[in-house]
Amino acid sequence: MPGNSFGKIFRITTFGESHGEGVGVIVDGCPSRISLLPEDFEKDMARRRPGGYHLGTPRKEEDQVEILSGVFEGHTTGAPIALFIRNRDVQSRPYEVLRSLFRPGHADYTYFKKYGHFDFRGGGRSSARETAARVAAGVVAGKVLEPSGIEVTAYTLELGGVRAKEFHIDAIDKNACYCPDPVAAKQMEEALSSAKESGDSLGGVIEVRVKGCPPGLGEPVFDKLDGDLAKAVMSVGAVKGVEIGAGFEAARLKGSENNDPITPDGFGTNRAGGILGGISNGDEILIKAAVKPVPSIGQEQDTVDRQGRPAKLRLDGRYDISAVPRVVPVLEAMVRIVLTDHYLRSKIAPPVNP
Amino acid sequence: MPGNSFGKIFRITTFGESHGEGVGVIVDGCPSRISLLPEDFEKDMARRRPGGYHLGTPRKEEDQVEILSGVFEGHTTGAPIALFIRNRDVQSRPYEVLRSLFRPGHADYTYFKKYGHFDFRGGGRSSARETAARVAAGVVAGKVLEPSGIEVTAYTLELGGVRAKEFHIDAIDKNACYCPDPVAAKQMEEALSSAKESGDSLGGVIEVRVKGCPPGLGEPVFDKLDGDLAKAVMSVGAVKGVEIGAGFEAARLKGSENNDPITPDGFGTNRAGGILGGISNGDEILIKAAVKPVPSIGQEQDTVDRQGRPAKLRLDGRYDISAVPRVVPVLEAMVRIVLTDHYLRSKIAPPVNP
Amino acid sequence: MPGNSFGKIFRITTFGESHGEGVGVIVDGCPSRISLLPEDFEKDMARRRPGGYHLGTPRKEEDQVEILSGVFEGHTTGAPIALFIRNRDVQSRPYEVLRSLFRPGHADYTYFKKYGHFDFRGGGRSSARETAARVAAGVVAGKVLEPSGIEVTAYTLELGGVRAKEFHIDAIDKNACYCPDPVAAKQMEEALSSAKESGDSLGGVIEVRVKGCPPGLGEPVFDKLDGDLAKAVMSVGAVKGVEIGAGFEAARLKGSENNDPITPDGFGTNRAGGILGGISNGDEILIKAAVKPVPSIGQEQDTVDRQGRPAKLRLDGRYDISAVPRVVPVLEAMVRIVLTDHYLRSKIAPPVNP
Amino acid sequence: MPGNSFGKIFRITTFGESHGEGVGVIVDGCPSRISLLPEDFEKDMARRRPGGYHLGTPRKEEDQVEILSGVFEGHTTGAPIALFIRNRDVQSRPYEVLRSLFRPGHADYTYFKKYGHFDFRGGGRSSARETAARVAAGVVAGKVLEPSGIEVTAYTLELGGVRAKEFHIDAIDKNACYCPDPVAAKQMEEALSSAKESGDSLGGVIEVRVKGCPPGLGEPVFDKLDGDLAKAVMSVGAVKGVEIGAGFEAARLKGSENNDPITPDGFGTNRAGGILGGISNGDEILIKAAVKPVPSIGQEQDTVDRQGRPAKLRLDGRYDISAVPRVVPVLEAMVRIVLTDHYLRSKIAPPVNP
Repeated sequence: MPGNSFGKIFRITTFGESHGEGVGVIVDGCPSRISLLPEDFEKDMARRRPGGYHLGTPRKEEDQVEILSGVFEGHTTGAPIALFIRNRDVQSRPYEVLRSLFRPGHADYTYFKKYGHFDFRGGGRSSARETAARVAAGVVAGKVLEPSGIEVTAYTLELGGVRAKEFHIDAIDKNACYCPDPVAAKQMEEALSSAKESGDSLGGVIEVRVKGCPPGLGEPVFDKLDGDLAKAVMSVGAVKGVEIGAGFEAARLKGSENNDPITPDGFGTNRAGGILGGISNGDEILIKAAVKPVPSIGQEQDTVDRQGRPAKLRLDGRYDISAVPRVVPVLEAMVRIVLTDHYLRSKIAPPVNP
Repeated sequence: MPGNSFGKIFRITTFGESHGEGVGVIVDGCPSRISLLPEDFEKDMARRRPGGYHLGTPRKEEDQVEILSGVFEGHTTGAPIALFIRNRDVQSRPYEVLRSLFRPGHADYTYFKKYGHFDFRGGGRSSARETAARVAAGVVAGKVLEPSGIEVTAYTLELGGVRAKEFHIDAIDKNACYCPDPVAAKQMEEALSSAKESGDSLGGVIEVRVKGCPPGLGEPVFDKLDGDLAKAVMSVGAVKGVEIGAGFEAARLKGSENNDPITPDGFGTNRAGGILGGISNGDEILIKAAVKPVPSIGQEQDTVDRQGRPAKLRLDGRYDISAVPRVVPVLEAMVRIVLTDHYLRSKIAPPVNP
Repeated sequence: MPGNSFGKIFRITTFGESHGEGVGVIVDGCPSRISLLPEDFEKDMARRRPGGYHLGTPRKEEDQVEILSGVFEGHTTGAPIALFIRNRDVQSRPYEVLRSLFRPGHADYTYFKKYGHFDFRGGGRSSARETAARVAAGVVAGKVLEPSGIEVTAYTLELGGVRAKEFHIDAIDKNACYCPDPVAAKQMEEALSSAKESGDSLGGVIEVRVKGCPPGLGEPVFDKLDGDLAKAVMSVGAVKGVEIGAGFEAARLKGSENNDPITPDGFGTNRAGGILGGISNGDEILIKAAVKPVPSIGQEQDTVDRQGRPAKLRLDGRYDISAVPRVVPVLEAMVRIVLTDHYLRSKIAPPVNP
Repeated sequence: MPGNSFGKIFRITTFGESHGEGVGVIVDGCPSRISLLPEDFEKDMARRRPGGYHLGTPRKEEDQVEILSGVFEGHTTGAPIALFIRNRDVQSRPYEVLRSLFRPGHADYTYFKKYGHFDFRGGGRSSARETAARVAAGVVAGKVLEPSGIEVTAYTLELGGVRAKEFHIDAIDKNACYCPDPVAAKQMEEALSSAKESGDSLGGVIEVRVKGCPPGLGEPVFDKLDGDLAKAVMSVGAVKGVEIGAGFEAARLKGSENNDPITPDGFGTNRAGGILGGISNGDEILIKAAVKPVPSIGQEQDTVDRQGRPAKLRLDGRYDISAVPRVVPVLEAMVRIVLTDHYLRSKIAPPVNP
């Protein structure tokens, strides 16, 4: 059954595999007359690419976005926008050894159980490569959001146990970890180096902040803004947890501590993370996502083959040590897509501010 | 725009308010010839009702479920099932004082900003009363799941800082907190008493376990099982965080620690929480939800009125001290609904197990 | 799988059976602050009721609409609106003889094949009684459309071979056939009388006109306005054909005859029926629907029983001689619902008129 | 708002324009392990291509289908299938004169009103070129239907007033009009020649027959099989009318004439067109569609320019004289897509045949 679409008003449908022709996305529901050029995609696609030696995979991804439809004379037409990112430098050879073994922590096993097959060449549809299409769609979302004043920023809050202690928005793009704290960024890179040496991998926590969101976005009771954000974030392969505002901390607070007082100038605190009753309250929206360590590691692991027989598996070392930095632009894109969807929804019956 | 439906194959649409005629749900997509009687709803509806003195609100809710359609001679017909739970004992009077003030931590403010009004009589549509309809739909879901062997159990893992240390499934329904650890349950009740005395409220953590789920449920890449579970759980008003399996802990583990080894007898550990690549792997599914403390507290709070002028608000004491116990059956229902949806989906192209 | 909802932005979900508690509808997506009172439903519900001796069934339907949710202090709140019409005067007894025989032309046979049962008490879910819920939803749609200037009028163009030759809008509600030509109306009633005498039934053609529709409604390429209208109209049980504008006549015209010339004052003719490329062009929208004769007739018919054995069936005479008049308000409602859906859609990215 | 997707279980999303990079479709929901090769598309794509001198446009379309995703080692994987048909031989030059004038009978005017622009190069998104993507999706649908025994055949019943009097299934592909009556086919070609001489165009009627459809497909009350078929057929640009079974003729029959008697061997007649109450009854499904004459004609026509000033327009002669033959494979594809959707739906709760 179809499961490759997301959004109701601004609707994306991704397709493609890591080792096929490429990956792509159809953006349906983008208003007409928005300027859109191939170069608009460059920055975000580059951010998703392996950024530095420590983090990166040697596989080079150029990730040029082709606009196949929906744009005429540099502007959207209201027709569906098809974006395609051709795969390059695809070497299926080293994957051949994986033809019969399931990699622990990957989707090989479940795809095999569900579909009766799995694409042993790097995960196929379940590969993180699919997120390139999400990032491309996020660029279009960003264009739609431009006049709204809504701004979405994602960054690494924690990596390999190292947590950012300061927040400098300008620092984010200046280090390979997309960390807003330059000192922590350095420690994160050290943690990555040391994990690499031991053939291991690291997880972390990404935070996404949304500034400038007006009150009134979100549709009770199931299409709540936080519900849709949770689904969007959790739909990214490596994510195992989502928090809005105080998140799990709220579970340990008392009502008198957790309630955000309302003042004539807005909310006194923001433990709600900008959302009340599933609707944005005008405050900053705050989302945290737990990213698990990359399951592809250099150490030997126990697994089974397609016939269920026990086996040992050791992968070679050309994998990311952590997915966290590359997931940063993906979550930024997904949150932007959710907000675009709800921003456009809110035009149907505009928020009444009596 | 419509936001009151959930699910694609097993689809529920809730309606109703806390102080109107009642709350209800349409269940569309339930197969025919499943036995369904009014008494099937009794146990779950009772579990959602205030269970004990400490927890409960004095407001008595009988919560009888009327079957308005879709059932003929005691069995479902394939037509939409309409369930209605009439409101009783509705006293709007004490709410009148709230006509102009927004209660901190509630949705009054955001509903007012979105819709130009808010139902000052206890939240209206944003009231937890709406979840009675979800619990009723969850009963139907449970009936559909019966032949599948899938079993969903929710319970309180933590309340007011007290954490369950043991798991006795039989203990859950024997204490007012729905806690599987009788010793912790006692401490939780003490915490509730003491919070009540200080006019405060408590949050906690609920865990949901799914046993007997076959591999293959979940639809990449957006309708992943964990994505849908995250949305379902986060769509419950009080929830601020969701974890699958190891959750945020996974962010601090190394790949070698977090990967679940695969053995001929199944997975050696279950940090994945039973889901890989968005598809169930046959292991137990584990979900945790952070529940915030009830925002209605007996202490004086800062707020504003509809005109934005500062005001003080003190609510009287007829509220739950913690939503946690009453959210337990709601999350159980929501998880059951998600699984029913994916269980029925899986029949379209059954999991291939070659 | 769910099939009881219609519309994407203004979404209705009907439920209920002819001989159960009643029929109803959830309207999700209605903007807030629209005035809505129980008496708003009276006129349209009465029009759907059997209007005269010749047409009518002796069964008396009062069809009072209860508003179960979504309205507070006489205005919509943005929450889902639940409307319920209780069944009265339900005598299942005469239907008992039908327990084992399929009525030709009815859905008994196909429901039995699909669901393994059929509701022998007058069709159950497949009964025309379900359309009462559609008419109620159409009233809400009409309220939403009010400020738009869009006006929908349905009437009987043909009945039992008698065709209206003149169009007097005021005449429509003055005869039991809802025919805009008083002379033809008289002949239609005679045709009904004579069919009644021979224990037979009659079909006809209903036309729906939409005035005041601005250009720009409709979403290429699948949610075209004419595509959605066709589905809406064909989803009414008795309808077997749909035409937009010239319809089947267009198949016999030449391009030079069928094209509507464009002039500075609009279109010179209206063979397109107000829709080009699936989008309204600002001209009057014209829809025709073929309504089959009522399958319940007083003559003896060949059929089979549940075991497939041949049988003779003769129904008693308490049925409508023609469904046409009662389908008139139903099609009016359905067309209004489609236009409301597309009218609200058009607010997302308003039609640009440069 | 998104409108480029069709189907719920077998879901297609088309994209692309007549004079952009190409047209394509994402097929989401296709089961895994179905054989699919590029050559599977050849026959159907060729049928949609201009077939003969009289009918054809000189523009040569090769219409090779590229499989961009969803197929691995010659079989579907369960992932979305992206199909792309590159535009070739695109000469935008002759269209330049249309930059400011709306072509009567085309969507130029409504697209301009809706989106604030129109693609003057042959219609852009509203071009019949888009249907190439539908035909490609229909091929995949055909593959899914193969084991079901359901067979869909479309043909020209009437063209330019000439009606087929005989039905020889083998004759259909042997003439340029796809007419099952070789004598009528000849007359149709003559009608086309004579229309061409006078710079005019012709419409007609296409019939689609579905054999081997089991009872039980279709979902009351809105996703009825006939409702979905009506939408699918009406969503094809040139179609102005749809009939199921007896269609408009049923409006003139009496109940005793229109009811299909039920016998132990099936239905005695088939005026219902194989559908009762929105559910297939096991008999042949019969659909008729009215196709309007091609609006691009060689005669001078009245129109206006973008500023609303009157103008004369004469198009050159490189257009089809009739769309009918090229719409035949498109309707065949759309009907196949609807049936695939409902066939897969029926697996969720299989038709019970007690």
